Amino acid sequence: MSGKKRILSGMRPTGPLHLGNLHGALNQWVALQDEYECFYFVADWHALTSNYEDPVGLDEFTLEMAADWLSAGLSPEKSTLFVQSHVKEHAELFLILSMITPLSWLERNPTYKDQMAQLVGKDVSTFGFLGYPVLQAADIIMYLADAVPVGEDQIPHVEITREIARRFNHLYGPVFREPQVLLTKATARILGIDRRKMSKSYDNAIYLGDPPETIAERTSRMITDPQRARKSDPGDPGVCNVFEFHKLYTDPEKVKEIDAGCRSAALGCVECKKNLAVSLAEGLAPIREKRAHYMERPDQVKQILADGTQKARAVARQTMEAVRAGVRL
Amino acid sequence: MSGKKRILSGMRPTGPLHLGNLHGALNQWVALQDEYECFYFVADWHALTSNYEDPVGLDEFTLEMAADWLSAGLSPEKSTLFVQSHVKEHAELFLILSMITPLSWLERNPTYKDQMAQLVGKDVSTFGFLGYPVLQAADIIMYLADAVPVGEDQIPHVEITREIARRFNHLYGPVFREPQVLLTKATARILGIDRRKMSKSYDNAIYLGDPPETIAERTSRMITDPQRARKSDPGDPGVCNVFEFHKLYTDPEKVKEIDAGCRSAALGCVECKKNLAVSLAEGLAPIREKRAHYMERPDQVKQILADGTQKARAVARQTMEAVRAGVRL
Repeated sequence: MSGKKRILSGMRPTGPLHLGNLHGALNQWVALQDEYECFYFVADWHALTSNYEDPVGLDEFTLEMAADWLSAGLSPEKSTLFVQSHVKEHAELFLILSMITPLSWLERNPTYKDQMAQLVGKDVSTFGFLGYPVLQAADIIMYLADAVPVGEDQIPHVEITREIARRFNHLYGPVFREPQVLLTKATARILGIDRRKMSKSYDNAIYLGDPPETIAERTSRMITDPQRARKSDPGDPGVCNVFEFHKLYTDPEKVKEIDAGCRSAALGCVECKKNLAVSLAEGLAPIREKRAHYMERPDQVKQILADGTQKARAVARQTMEAVRAGVRL
Repeated sequence: MSGKKRILSGMRPTGPLHLGNLHGALNQWVALQDEYECFYFVADWHALTSNYEDPVGLDEFTLEMAADWLSAGLSPEKSTLFVQSHVKEHAELFLILSMITPLSWLERNPTYKDQMAQLVGKDVSTFGFLGYPVLQAADIIMYLADAVPVGEDQIPHVEITREIARRFNHLYGPVFREPQVLLTKATARILGIDRRKMSKSYDNAIYLGDPPETIAERTSRMITDPQRARKSDPGDPGVCNVFEFHKLYTDPEKVKEIDAGCRSAALGCVECKKNLAVSLAEGLAPIREKRAHYMERPDQVKQILADGTQKARAVARQTMEAVRAGVRL
């Protein structure tokens, strides 16, 4: 075990990753690799909580997401990359924690009813959906994580995790660590091409693996400053989603020119978006190429996940020995 | 796989077994061994649902219960005897079934609120307690059991199991069998020495391993026909708990004499109970001796459970492969 602090985070394999995932979480995961001992996992059992009625391709999505991770810079030499459902100890710990978790903690979970309301058209009023904070707690405390990198909306879940860890320790002795929140700030506020949150289900995303033609096509349909109706109207880059992308993918000198050109109405949105398409295609080229490499070599990706899973399992087994001794099973 | 139909049942390891357990279930399990392929398991994870606050000795209770089973006639050559928590696949299937089980099925479970009311002084309003029919379903359908030997009060649970199996098959393809109810009639209506249901928690039980002195002491405190205040009053064997025991443990010729002696007030309760103590001590001698044998050889019992667990695990692994293929994990 290194002297570094340990963190853990997971992502549901619900399809290929897009720029919203990259700038919302993945880039931060990559950055954390040097400072922390990182455990990153494919949360395939979690994906069932909302997608159980149509789990088509969880196994394929797992491979594809791992390819996305590797392409964006997660490294199996620095981090432990693994698949949740391949470490059965998560299910065992979930079961044991279920027995000590009061129903009321789950029912009062603020995101529970939010999510119920959001997932319209999906029947998520299942036992497993109510209990997903218990599974999440098992995922986290299994590895005795010091901290969990999460966004602000996830803080209540980490709090439930801490409460469950505390309750276990109180009942059976000090096995678990209470993880801290490692608040991650989104590095950019990019939206989907329709200005809604970028999401696979809205069909408004640009994916890490999109070829330049797809990027150009999608970029051309991006909604810009809604107040700028004609090219001769001056625009406001401060409210323009295209400009947010430019700030991330275009040369800073050129960004200044774009800002001025927009404000003075010298630069039209069509041209501005064409420029962006070029910047995006260039900026994403290294990821796209690595991704193509991995997608052609699924066995290599599988092997990386198998190696990571083996490392994770070794830690999980050790934890479960202490758990079983505490519970006297 | 034999041509016999397969059944499965489990018992929670909450302490040594008593005559209520023997005549309520264990004797029937023994009898079913020839007609069926039997899987009998120590439900140690289930024991946590109501005992999580004080699980002291689940591991010891497991061994002791297995010794009780073997002494009463369960045979590792005929049946698969195993420990639930040693087949991790139960936890995995529990997790997956959680995702597809509507909360409403569990909330409307008629025994849920009953049990909540009965377990006064224990805080059982946990997520796991609500979900124990899901764990029970996992236990049963894992082995593709044709039937489950249960008492009348357990029929709703088997119905939930059937519903969960049906729902899984509907969503992911025909993996599971819907188990039938194999209704077991209690072979005798014996009560504890205080005429309440025989139960460890009432401290009114006679245990399989009790030595003759303990049997005599406990028998002497048995409540007989409550209407018979004096020895000179005639008694009614039809309402006497001691007489129920005589019917099971005393020579039929002698039982007739006792019946007549009680009704005519020729036989007093004190003497009647002394006779019973002798019959019980004799009748239980073979079980008591086998039990002493096994209790002195915990490693032998452990080995029997380990062998059974290995057999159970082989079946569970096969089932889980079909489950994972269905869910596409």
